[in-house]
Amino acid sequence: MEVNDINMQSDNCEPDRAAHPGIFLCHQAGKSDHQPAGRYVDFPVSVVLPAGGSGERTGLQTPKQFCSFLGRPLISYTIQAFERVSWIQSIMVVVAKENMDLMTDIIQRFQHRKVRVVPGGSTRHRSICNGVLALGEEEGGRSAAERPKVVIIHDAVRPFVEEDFLYKIAMAAKEQGAAGAIRPLVSTVIATTSEGYLDHSLERAKYRASEMPQGFTYDVICQAYQRCSESDFEFGTECLHLALQYCGTNAKLIEGPPTLWKVTYKRDLAAAESIIKETLSRSACIITGGSTQAATLAVALQKAVSALDMELDVIPDLMGDNARYLLKEWNFIQVSVNTSCLSEVEAMFVALEAANRALLHPLVVIWVRFSSMDELSVSGRMAEPAAIMDLASTAKLRNILLYGIQLHQSKEAERWEKSVLRVAEIASALIRDRSPALVGQLLQA
Amino acid sequence: MEVNDINMQSDNCEPDRAAHPGIFLCHQAGKSDHQPAGRYVDFPVSVVLPAGGSGERTGLQTPKQFCSFLGRPLISYTIQAFERVSWIQSIMVVVAKENMDLMTDIIQRFQHRKVRVVPGGSTRHRSICNGVLALGEEEGGRSAAERPKVVIIHDAVRPFVEEDFLYKIAMAAKEQGAAGAIRPLVSTVIATTSEGYLDHSLERAKYRASEMPQGFTYDVICQAYQRCSESDFEFGTECLHLALQYCGTNAKLIEGPPTLWKVTYKRDLAAAESIIKETLSRSACIITGGSTQAATLAVALQKAVSALDMELDVIPDLMGDNARYLLKEWNFIQVSVNTSCLSEVEAMFVALEAANRALLHPLVVIWVRFSSMDELSVSGRMAEPAAIMDLASTAKLRNILLYGIQLHQSKEAERWEKSVLRVAEIASALIRDRSPALVGQLLQA
Repeated sequence: MEVNDINMQSDNCEPDRAAHPGIFLCHQAGKSDHQPAGRYVDFPVSVVLPAGGSGERTGLQTPKQFCSFLGRPLISYTIQAFERVSWIQSIMVVVAKENMDLMTDIIQRFQHRKVRVVPGGSTRHRSICNGVLALGEEEGGRSAAERPKVVIIHDAVRPFVEEDFLYKIAMAAKEQGAAGAIRPLVSTVIATTSEGYLDHSLERAKYRASEMPQGFTYDVICQAYQRCSESDFEFGTECLHLALQYCGTNAKLIEGPPTLWKVTYKRDLAAAESIIKETLSRSACIITGGSTQAATLAVALQKAVSALDMELDVIPDLMGDNARYLLKEWNFIQVSVNTSCLSEVEAMFVALEAANRALLHPLVVIWVRFSSMDELSVSGRMAEPAAIMDLASTAKLRNILLYGIQLHQSKEAERWEKSVLRVAEIASALIRDRSPALVGQLLQA
Repeated sequence: MEVNDINMQSDNCEPDRAAHPGIFLCHQAGKSDHQPAGRYVDFPVSVVLPAGGSGERTGLQTPKQFCSFLGRPLISYTIQAFERVSWIQSIMVVVAKENMDLMTDIIQRFQHRKVRVVPGGSTRHRSICNGVLALGEEEGGRSAAERPKVVIIHDAVRPFVEEDFLYKIAMAAKEQGAAGAIRPLVSTVIATTSEGYLDHSLERAKYRASEMPQGFTYDVICQAYQRCSESDFEFGTECLHLALQYCGTNAKLIEGPPTLWKVTYKRDLAAAESIIKETLSRSACIITGGSTQAATLAVALQKAVSALDMELDVIPDLMGDNARYLLKEWNFIQVSVNTSCLSEVEAMFVALEAANRALLHPLVVIWVRFSSMDELSVSGRMAEPAAIMDLASTAKLRNILLYGIQLHQSKEAERWEKSVLRVAEIASALIRDRSPALVGQLLQA
């Protein structure tokens, strides 16, 4: 079996990696520091991720798992969801032969570790079986002690799986031999006659939708695939069913959260993108440069964006302890007072690039040019738009989206409040939409 | 039974109404003129739309059917999907008592016709039954000839139902007594033991998800509800099942398109919004004011936005035959050459308001200020930003979103092409995002 070994580092997982790259845990808002889960799995767990689907149901040419969201393919999000779980040792991605190179590129580009790629078979079961077998193989053979105790099987097109739930599946699989995620049925299920008429409808309460992930002890899933028939390989859909039929293992069923859903139709792509964008736009940090005027503005903005469901941290700079924002925040607002000079933004870009953040998601940087000059001189005083446009064009190539907002101090309280509110609304919209077409614009508050 | 009679006009359906307000038919791109479906239903058909759900599964306080998309509640989209079908006579919306006033407001605000509101019961079946009974009642009684021959039952939270499919359901219901939409199962369905273990999994090919709409002859659905038990009213989920059990009617099952899906979870709200936005942004028209320079620009833009999947019609003005765009287009681009004067945009607003378009969806108007002056004088020459901001603030109150793009002629071919491309990208992003926070901005191309 051909195996692409990509930078396997199964024993080298920084415990705080989870909080950094792309966090989709409900309890981990973008800004909170990582809290270790507290529950640790003390046996080896590996993952098989079949990603051979052709994506016919989305009506798109690209298979769903390779569709990009904010410049990054769906499967990379899914891989990352597993990679950030410290007790998961390795991830075996199974793809169609024609996509092996593409997959290898994705792994290198987004610096995935723990991942190997194996070629898929002609059906879903053959692909999963290839992945399971590859887990037991290694150049020169693998001893029983090195084999995973539990194998988790998931779908490449379910990117939002959370550590808590993986823990439940892994523990139940170890105890019972097999475990699977279920969800309540959304629609009534009916049996049809061969002529296309209603035969009978099922009582909804007795049935569940079988979802992913599923977990098996290595022995159970291996035995199931060794014993099952060609017809199972060809037409079967459920690993749980094989475990029951060929190993007598009744899987433990665990209700999962709605986020486990499978990206199936075109509308699901929009839903997934919206979840990713929402997760990235929960918080921002605003850098005042130590100016009192900027700090006053920042506090007013903090209040205004809070009404728009965004948390804003006010900091003077990104030095010392505040450098941690470079490692965890996706959105930065730089306030510059009475200057058209973009040097503060340029310095931030250098720091962000050193932190290598923009690799996984586009970062948003908003430059607020705050002019405290007299109102009468407002209309003619705009910053040179060419400078910010040029800087934004360069930054965009490095996955940083730069926008500008121009704000004029007003002594008239009502007018000033209105301007602050507009900065908040514009900043919030820019952060949420992450529109590449609007970079380099200097908007008026 | 209390019935709010709202402007019933069941015999007064303009045949071309379908193409106007909010078109979600795949074959009707935003810009195409309405083509009559060619197939007409020659018997009376009415609709019952249960909308009593509490929306628990979205995790939001507002029930899903009342969640707004671009300023308009979901149920209004669903009502409109039926209203534009000329052969549908009346729509009975069933809502919880506490939402009767809200629903009445929605109907008035979005000028729905053909609609009546009735209060729901304590379960889904009781609500549907109330709706069906209300169809047969009228002040002073209704003669058998006036009753609908076929009743279509649908969900308020499935807004994208199409005329073609309604036709199939209505015809099959009339022939067979009952008909229902089905979809293939996305997940395998499994039976669980009472202890939460796998009992068995169903063979996916033999089962289908039962969806909406469903259709019944008036006699069948009335009889089913007259004969069914209290337990059916309390726990039953399927009208098709009642028709089978109490009338011996085997429903004809018809596979529907994926757009029939039910807005259930929070992610579905994002998916629905994305579909609505995509539908509204398929096309735009660009008004050149008869200027040759503007026309040349318009043709270049036409090519550029076509690569971004948007169709652009170039017209000199909105007079005469071109006034039809006021009735069918959701996006307008006004090119003004060498002037900072917004009078052309103001004139367009007057025309749009006369056409009463912005009632149903926000209209996007993009003012392209095209300056053909020498490049050297570019930097200092910006249009007065206050004027467009003021105009945009007023327009926003009338659901018109005004944005500006500033473009400078360049004699350098490469630079010029880049600017045109940027106008196309910005315009396309503004039209797609429809962001209220960015109105009144004058963006630089």
